[in-house]
This record gives sequence, C-alpha cells and structure tokens, in this order.
Amino acid sequence: MRYVLLVQYDGTGFSGFQKQKKGERTVQGELERAAAEIFGTPTRVSASGRTDAGVHARGQVADLIGETSVPPERLFLCFNRILPPDLRVLASAAAPEGFDCTRAVKKKTYAYTFYHAPAELPLLERYAVRVPVCPDIERMRSAARLLTGEHDFKAFSATGSSAKTTVRTVYGITVGKRTEAGAEIFRIAVTGNGFLYNMVRILAGELVSIGCGKGIDDIERAFETGDRRLVAKTMPARGLTLEQVDYGFPLFGEKE
Amino acid sequence: MRYVLLVQYDGTGFSGFQKQKKGERTVQGELERAAAEIFGTPTRVSASGRTDAGVHARGQVADLIGETSVPPERLFLCFNRILPPDLRVLASAAAPEGFDCTRAVKKKTYAYTFYHAPAELPLLERYAVRVPVCPDIERMRSAARLLTGEHDFKAFSATGSSAKTTVRTVYGITVGKRTEAGAEIFRIAVTGNGFLYNMVRILAGELVSIGCGKGIDDIERAFETGDRRLVAKTMPARGLTLEQVDYGFPLFGEKE
Repeated sequence: MRYVLLVQYDGTGFSGFQKQKKGERTVQGELERAAAEIFGTPTRVSASGRTDAGVHARGQVADLIGETSVPPERLFLCFNRILPPDLRVLASAAAPEGFDCTRAVKKKTYAYTFYHAPAELPLLERYAVRVPVCPDIERMRSAARLLTGEHDFKAFSATGSSAKTTVRTVYGITVGKRTEAGAEIFRIAVTGNGFLYNMVRILAGELVSIGCGKGIDDIERAFETGDRRLVAKTMPARGLTLEQVDYGFPLFGEKE
Repeated sequence: MRYVLLVQYDGTGFSGFQKQKKGERTVQGELERAAAEIFGTPTRVSASGRTDAGVHARGQVADLIGETSVPPERLFLCFNRILPPDLRVLASAAAPEGFDCTRAVKKKTYAYTFYHAPAELPLLERYAVRVPVCPDIERMRSAARLLTGEHDFKAFSATGSSAKTTVRTVYGITVGKRTEAGAEIFRIAVTGNGFLYNMVRILAGELVSIGCGKGIDDIERAFETGDRRLVAKTMPARGLTLEQVDYGFPLFGEKE
C-alpha cells in the first residue's frame, strides 16, 4: 500500500532532503530509518522534491510503500515516536491510486524571509537573513510583477543545473513587511509550477537588490539572454522554507 | 561613564542571565567578557532583571560603567564584534544621570507562546510549547481579565521565592491567536510593574488550564489563600520571551 506523509523539518541540522553517500544527516535518511523500523524492511521514501542543505519545510509531502495494520491516518504517530525532534510527520493518509508525490505536483509555494536591523537578531537568525540596507518594498513589488508568469528562468538558476527545460511558470509573488522591535521583517512568497536549482534564493536576492537600487530592466535582459551574471547572488539557505505543495486535491482531508 | 545597552538573546544555549559560579554559559558572563575586552578592565554588567535558563529576550536592558573614546551610540558595534551569535546588543547610549537599570524599571512585558497541532512542530518548538488540547480563547480572555490589576500573586510564584512582598500590579494581559499550516498558535502578552519568580510561566499555565476546562473560580481562591497548589503547573522556559522593558522615557532615542 502507498502512503502519503505531510512532513515538517527545521533544516538547520540537515544536509538537505536527499540521502548522501557519505552518511551525512539528511531528511530522507531519517525518514527511511524510521520507515524501516515501522515496516520491518528497507523502505524507500520519496518527496515532492529535494530541498537543499539548511532549507526548512513547513509542509513537505513524501510517499512510501509499505504494509502495516496501523490505520493510514494514524501512521504519522508511529513515525513521530522514532524521528528526531527537528523532523516530524504532521499527517498521513492512503495515497490515491497510481499517485507519485514527485510527478503529481501541481504547484509549490516557497517563502524567503529577511530583515533589516542595526545588528543580527538572535531570535530571527535561525530562519531569516539580515540585509545591510533596507530595501524599498514598492520597487520589490514592481520587480515581483515582472517575474510573474511563464518565462525562461535560466539566468535565475545555479549554473550546471541539469533540468531539461528552464521554462517555468510563476503564478504569483507576494512581498510582505512587518515591524517588530525596531526590525523591518520582509517575507517573499513565491508560487510556481516548479523551480530550477537555487531559483527561489536567486529570485529573493534579485528582489532585495532591486529594492536597494539595482536596475529593474535587468530582469528583462536576464530573461532574454539567460545570463546568470546579470542577476543578483544566491541568498543563504536558512531564509528559505518550503511552505506548501499543491496536488490539485486534498491529500490529508481536513488536516491540511 | 554609565552606558545602557538594548540586548537580544536566544535563551536556548544559556543557563539564564545571571552569572553562575560553576562557569556555566550565561548572558551576563558573555556580556562581561566582551566588556572586559572593550574597556580593558573587569566590568560588571547589570540587567533590568534576571531571566531563567532557556528564557529568551527580544528587548532586555542592561547597564555598565566604563571609559572609552567610542561614541555611546556606536558602542553596541564593539560588543557585536566579540559576542557569540545567539547574543547581540541592538543599541547603546549614555545613561541618564543616576540611572540604575534594575531599580528604575516602570513596566515589563513578557510574551508566552504555545500552540495546538497534531504533532510537535519543528519550526515552532524552539520558541513555543505544544499543548495537547486546544484551549478556548474566550475562557482564557475571561481569566486574563480576572488576573489583571493589583493582587497578591503569592500562589502564582515558585515556592521559596525571596521577594519581600508578593503584591504586584498586572497592567494588562492580551491573548492572541493565529492559524498557520494547520496549527493554532497562541501568544499571551503580560505587562506588569514586576513579576515574582516563575510568575509569567505559572500565569500562562493557569490560562491554558482554564482554557481547557479548569474552574475559573480558582483564581479568586488562589488570590485569597496564596496556595500554590490551586494553580496550574509552571510552563516550560522556551515559550517565554522578555519583550520589552519600559522606564517611562526612551533610553535609545529613535532606535526603540
């Protein structure tokens, strides 16, 4: 039987989702170790997609095949008795017939959080990145509108990416801001049908740079030329969170 | 010259504010180590009040006496070059004549954060505590009104507390709630003229318990009898943050 899992993790202590050969600590490795204990046999766990070292997930989706008498909706409890505290399964269910949690993805939403303050803020630094200049939110929102839609995002991906096509559709980018104890905290949320390697962290970097004065015309030129050098540098992993994976129907009933 | 510092820390890695004899890692210890390096002489650093092991601070206020040619408003930068990443000075200034950051406190605000979810949430657990039953917010708000005002809070403090009087004034308690990825996240903010040992963590526990069905009349009986056993147990330290210390005038100019 195939099961789907709703998974949350603090990425700080993981070398990313994907299992590494050298025995580094990964989300997949921890999930597969727990699954092997629950099902009594080596069990492969797949996800909607990988996340890099240090990237967090609030609502990652994973699936696996196994046999157990535990009701599907209660399987997540078995995982949480085994998993380390920085990784939890929030819900579980029987997968729909023929479901594949990687291929069936319709939309994903990532959030990138950064802030401006006179010093690094210890209560924010785990999940956000400090920027030395306070960006202009209206400039960022103008740039976000230009980045929305179907485009060739080649210039917005790490070089050496092996994707077959670099065309992706960004359905929407929102830029929010709140003030807390003297800090201006920004949150960029990006929803798309898929993302190239490092794409959200590069988009976030470009929005911050444009908010701080970089030419907004660079976006059009980057789309036309595919030249990575026209675009800002990749933002650090710890500001990035995979918020939600959307399959076009609810996988976990009311729990989502 | 006396300086005041606005200090933020993630309490997870500290054995509280106050320096310990056994050489445990404390906020005061780290600040005094940095101050000794900056001023070239052993320097005592005091705070508005102690925080317990594991308690966080967004806006703790500290003071110290030292001589340096660095302008008071830039002294915080010297500290941040030395301090560990979980402790930062956000602003510095010359203290007013005769100022004492412990005795001059007018009001303090603490926040306690907890949440209800089907499992512990790795992205919340560092600064919040999971409760197994979802409390009723209107019951909590009714209880918060009863706790507001001048009362003898003896029953709401850890036994063995050495305070001369157990009468304190709570100026206000707000109970907020937001929903995030299926979790109900609650934040209790308490402002008072001072707090007994463990008082905010006990108040938070009592509000959660009343929200989950404990009799609201227990509050009046606890005020009358001072009996600690009538009141809920102390909540864990990691949900508590010292948000703000108020002296009745701005210490750091615009930076506050």
